[in-house]
Amino acid sequence: MGDKAKCAACARGEAEEAVQDSSERGLEWLFRPRSIAVVGASSQRDNRNRFFLESLQALGFSGMLFAVNARGEAVGEWPGFRRVSEIPHEVDHVIVAIPAGAILEVLEDCARKGVRSVTVFSSGFGETGESRGRALEQEVRRWLRGRALRLIGPNCMGIYCPESGLGFRPDFPKEPGPIGFVSQSGGMTITGVLMAAARGLRFSKVISYGNEADVNSVELLDYLAQDPKTRLIWAYLEGAPHGRALVRAMEAAARTKPLLVLKGGKTESGGRAAASHTGSMAGAPQIWEGVIRKAGGLSVRTLEQMVDTSLALLWLPPCRGRRAGMVCVSGGLSVNYTDLAVQSGFEVPRLSPRLVARLREVMDLPGTSLNNPLDLAAGYFQYPAYGQLFRTLGESGEMDFIILILALEYFYLPESRYPGISRALVQAFLEAGRDCKLPFCVVMPQVQEDPRQKEFEKKFAAARIPVFPSMERALEALRGWMKWWERRRSGTSSP
Amino acid sequence: MGDKAKCAACARGEAEEAVQDSSERGLEWLFRPRSIAVVGASSQRDNRNRFFLESLQALGFSGMLFAVNARGEAVGEWPGFRRVSEIPHEVDHVIVAIPAGAILEVLEDCARKGVRSVTVFSSGFGETGESRGRALEQEVRRWLRGRALRLIGPNCMGIYCPESGLGFRPDFPKEPGPIGFVSQSGGMTITGVLMAAARGLRFSKVISYGNEADVNSVELLDYLAQDPKTRLIWAYLEGAPHGRALVRAMEAAARTKPLLVLKGGKTESGGRAAASHTGSMAGAPQIWEGVIRKAGGLSVRTLEQMVDTSLALLWLPPCRGRRAGMVCVSGGLSVNYTDLAVQSGFEVPRLSPRLVARLREVMDLPGTSLNNPLDLAAGYFQYPAYGQLFRTLGESGEMDFIILILALEYFYLPESRYPGISRALVQAFLEAGRDCKLPFCVVMPQVQEDPRQKEFEKKFAAARIPVFPSMERALEALRGWMKWWERRRSGTSSP
Repeated sequence: MGDKAKCAACARGEAEEAVQDSSERGLEWLFRPRSIAVVGASSQRDNRNRFFLESLQALGFSGMLFAVNARGEAVGEWPGFRRVSEIPHEVDHVIVAIPAGAILEVLEDCARKGVRSVTVFSSGFGETGESRGRALEQEVRRWLRGRALRLIGPNCMGIYCPESGLGFRPDFPKEPGPIGFVSQSGGMTITGVLMAAARGLRFSKVISYGNEADVNSVELLDYLAQDPKTRLIWAYLEGAPHGRALVRAMEAAARTKPLLVLKGGKTESGGRAAASHTGSMAGAPQIWEGVIRKAGGLSVRTLEQMVDTSLALLWLPPCRGRRAGMVCVSGGLSVNYTDLAVQSGFEVPRLSPRLVARLREVMDLPGTSLNNPLDLAAGYFQYPAYGQLFRTLGESGEMDFIILILALEYFYLPESRYPGISRALVQAFLEAGRDCKLPFCVVMPQVQEDPRQKEFEKKFAAARIPVFPSMERALEALRGWMKWWERRRSGTSSP
Repeated sequence: MGDKAKCAACARGEAEEAVQDSSERGLEWLFRPRSIAVVGASSQRDNRNRFFLESLQALGFSGMLFAVNARGEAVGEWPGFRRVSEIPHEVDHVIVAIPAGAILEVLEDCARKGVRSVTVFSSGFGETGESRGRALEQEVRRWLRGRALRLIGPNCMGIYCPESGLGFRPDFPKEPGPIGFVSQSGGMTITGVLMAAARGLRFSKVISYGNEADVNSVELLDYLAQDPKTRLIWAYLEGAPHGRALVRAMEAAARTKPLLVLKGGKTESGGRAAASHTGSMAGAPQIWEGVIRKAGGLSVRTLEQMVDTSLALLWLPPCRGRRAGMVCVSGGLSVNYTDLAVQSGFEVPRLSPRLVARLREVMDLPGTSLNNPLDLAAGYFQYPAYGQLFRTLGESGEMDFIILILALEYFYLPESRYPGISRALVQAFLEAGRDCKLPFCVVMPQVQEDPRQKEFEKKFAAARIPVFPSMERALEALRGWMKWWERRRSGTSSP
């Protein structure tokens, strides 16, 4: 943490070790800087760049942090300097957040100092579509040629790696997890990480890479494909300057782990927006869909679908078929949801008379329909029977997975009679689902404002049971999960 | 409220007046009972039927309420009797919640007493698919022939009419609103009303009609079509025993006001579920879609879509075209959302150089892209400029409506520097949107747990500005809104 500890580390030659490691594991060293300077961070009230320092601190970065600004002023507890080269310690990584026109001078200074990598947050380059910005970006690219220094960006947020305390938002989770994320857009990175985090997902390494003047999507995908800490990959791509290499990298990645790709700028108008965002040119929508599918990736339309599908892929066991078992409390919802499931390519098979008879032994109440969908009606609140009920379903061989519809609006009456019963019900569902020997997930439709909703969601998430906020989103996620496992079985992407 | 007031009302002959009114306005009288008895309500702890009394009280029903149960015991403040005919006051409406086999006896008793309408909550009739249930339902139907008494159900929740304090959930809104809802399913009614209520929508009359042994979907649609308090109609249908008449009623309804139809049991499996739910037989999915469209109705897939589309239809002015203007804070999101909009059938047109120049006069900051989508970037937080910005867009003639992306996850940094700025931003957006002369709606993606989300949603709802929880849901709602107005213009359904 302190000044002294760091210098000792330098003295021990950890820098050399890290470089050596990089040759074996590609970009691994990028995620392990031991000190970081933020160029453009000052203590002025409206200074946004201080946020980088605050984020690193919040995420527990244990190396040294420095501010670099025109007056060389300190920022809070972080010492300040006029230039990177004036910092009297090794500086591994530099975050540059000053106007585009002043970048090259800073890069020269970084090179002089022996900085190993730079994230250029600043925009004002190729993405402006203006000749000045394009020329600047060309200059940066030219300058980089043949240099050891690696550059992420420009026009990006850089790296989030909770394991090493790297990140650009104080509210990103500190705990690492299995998702690796390469994203051309900083905004999609922020929204994506936070959206996933709220659902219980965590990340190994996230890289917002912007205009990819140097570090590019291809090498990042290659890195994540072989990174043992990454079990599933997200990619948000706008352009594809390295067309064939990118397809090759997607194929390689999808061979080792699920690859979810969200392509921005698929339509002409979207492409125009992308051009002014990261300077990328879009291809035709169908071409992209085909390319992603052919590479073995799953194409998703939205971040919501990205998160939902990841929950299914990471928390559910392999998909063995398309037969859904559905457990519900309301007849109307179960009719509607059956339609949706069938229209999404699933089956909701009628159960055998033998199985229905066995279920009747467990739970036989008026209004209860024990075929599939199981409309529990009043039986919904007979929670001591859940264990046996779900065990019977799980062992029947008549379905491939179970969707429980947790419709909290129906807890009102039982809760008014038996305060506390809602929690007991949810706990019983959770245990029954966890122990039922079939992939099991929950749909908790967003109906009323209800503080218990978040509480229950978190409970299921802690037990690694996916919860979806609507039937449609659940079905879309399960379809991705099914596709992935179908392809693995058919050998399109072998493990 | 009290005993005496009621008797006075009876003495004044209000009953006769109401009957007369019914001949002019169809079922109007059904929604205006002056006294209600609940058969099957007792004071035992696990008695669920007491809930009907509690709900009527919570919704402010001002007539007399009675409990009828085997021991004739009172339920709290409500007097109890053994039979309806023993109640020493006029009884307009009776809710029956006892086992199916005992229904006929109660109906006879109600007829003796001169009860005008009955809701049969009990299930165990045609929907069981068993001969006993079917026979019972046939008997009820036969019994009703030629009688003045009208029956809603069986297997239903009955009526919610906030204006007269009728309803079957204490947490339904007390305030009336413009939506009329006929629903074969009680569950869909509960979920639908609560889901809509949470978004700021309110209802005129809601009828859960179940197996429609007597009062049926056709006359209910006819009633809502001419009800001046109803400005938009929802229908959840499973079967269609009155096929042609139902189509005729849908046509008539859609001619007067927007009609949103959710058909349950469109698929074979869904139809099987519907059969065991309300005893209905399903048609083929395509047939239903065609029938609804031809009748001038909007077919929706889910309750979520029903609510979203209603927000657009009720709160936005007429749709004049498909050109969307989009205002966003994040480049990546705006690229992705532009793709989604175009793929949903909208245009996100490039703005004229003249308009871009005018916008630049209002807001010119680095990183801001002032074409369409407008990626405000840092400008997002320059809220004093919003009024002028949205006014300029609204007067440009270059777009038909505006979608504002309110991405709360980007409020973190500004809020950390300028506490309270989020509320000021939202207020400024609200005022700018309200005054901008174009249909204006908000997308507030569900990213993090954030208490302000609900607060802001309510603020917009109070100003009758629709807020959608995702871009996809907004686009689907806007598509329904566009379709409805396109049809009106083309005369398919004239006002």
